[in-house]
Amino acid sequence: MKVLFVHAHSEADSFVSAMRDSAKAAFEERGDTVTVSDLYAMKFNPVSGPEDFGQRSDPGHLTYALEQRHGYENGTIAEDIKTEIGKVLDADIVGFTFPLYWFGTPAILKGWIDRVFISGTFYGGKRLYGNGGMAGKKAFAAFSLGGREYMFGEDSLHGPLATGMMKHFFQGTLGYAGFSVVEPFIAHHVPYLPLDQRQKCLAELRDYVLSFDRLPIMPMPDLKNFGPRFEPLGKPA
Amino acid sequence: MKVLFVHAHSEADSFVSAMRDSAKAAFEERGDTVTVSDLYAMKFNPVSGPEDFGQRSDPGHLTYALEQRHGYENGTIAEDIKTEIGKVLDADIVGFTFPLYWFGTPAILKGWIDRVFISGTFYGGKRLYGNGGMAGKKAFAAFSLGGREYMFGEDSLHGPLATGMMKHFFQGTLGYAGFSVVEPFIAHHVPYLPLDQRQKCLAELRDYVLSFDRLPIMPMPDLKNFGPRFEPLGKPA
Repeated sequence: MKVLFVHAHSEADSFVSAMRDSAKAAFEERGDTVTVSDLYAMKFNPVSGPEDFGQRSDPGHLTYALEQRHGYENGTIAEDIKTEIGKVLDADIVGFTFPLYWFGTPAILKGWIDRVFISGTFYGGKRLYGNGGMAGKKAFAAFSLGGREYMFGEDSLHGPLATGMMKHFFQGTLGYAGFSVVEPFIAHHVPYLPLDQRQKCLAELRDYVLSFDRLPIMPMPDLKNFGPRFEPLGKPA
Repeated sequence: MKVLFVHAHSEADSFVSAMRDSAKAAFEERGDTVTVSDLYAMKFNPVSGPEDFGQRSDPGHLTYALEQRHGYENGTIAEDIKTEIGKVLDADIVGFTFPLYWFGTPAILKGWIDRVFISGTFYGGKRLYGNGGMAGKKAFAAFSLGGREYMFGEDSLHGPLATGMMKHFFQGTLGYAGFSVVEPFIAHHVPYLPLDQRQKCLAELRDYVLSFDRLPIMPMPDLKNFGPRFEPLGKPA
């Protein structure tokens, strides 16, 4: 399998970078080939805007999603976007490694999604969830946070993590674009862990990757339960 | 009252920029003073990293949240961050105007949060939700999206919007930092609306702002229901 890692940490000696290295080594141990988009090292520009397009379909007024389609079809979208789209299309599995910032990805990774997950190729019209452009590919995330495990889940302080606070990412982004979203690998309480527990965590990440093909897929909305305009069936929209 | 708008759209002729102008005019009609951080116009840098700090508490290894505290206390944090923190601290109300990108804020605004909502001043230790650093201030968002209203809510395609897909922002960011979070103003289906419906939407936004003091506040977790380590009371952590 071809695996693309999208990595968002500025420091090579960080725990998140160690997670990337550990997961990459485990995929390679499986016989997979791994490519890494190391966003800080690439100085990836996360700011979407008019500079993303050369010749525009409407030079007078910018409708970003419309110009994404036009620019990609005509080869006039920015080169860095084109390159990253190519990497995603070439991959069977896309993995994200990052520290959790405000229950989302760091801005450099959010902007990679804003600019790379273009309308038309990744989603659009009726192409979402099971019909999304990335159907047939798997995605996963391995991320760190400061909070403890018991702070998440029903009746806990912050509620569920992957299906609650991070629903925007796992369902609203990866699932929406059609990926089969593998249950994430979550490293809790990282800034406070002693070295031996960090090493244990990296060993668990290796096991996660080695059992990747058997890991559960997160449930997504089933389009069969919705009508042609995505209205809930049985209720007129 | 002093109102700070944080605005994230590259185009001055966009509907989101018209929303900002409409809301700003309505606050001024109330007698409030409005400052705008127009992130695209300011070319705000959304990428957090080692460049955010001058003299560091630990030059050898970067722990971002730790250096935020140290840099702010010692005045060595980047000038753009210092300026934006000052604007937030000076405001009674902070409003966010943006187009919804992947059920979150555009990266330029996500990075404003990553860099400006610093540890120590905005949150940290036991300071979150009702005890967060921004307690006593109100926050709101007025944002646009392509989806229709019936696609959100229980049993709908994407589930609830403000408390589901955008829980990371309203609860996990604004509520977490202690703001009283006013129910958002949501402009659905914007790219497909004819001019008269867009004008109607801007008029509704004016009404929203004119009735701002009476708008409902979104419920947040009550820390009284959790123990000293934020474990749910009655269950040992």
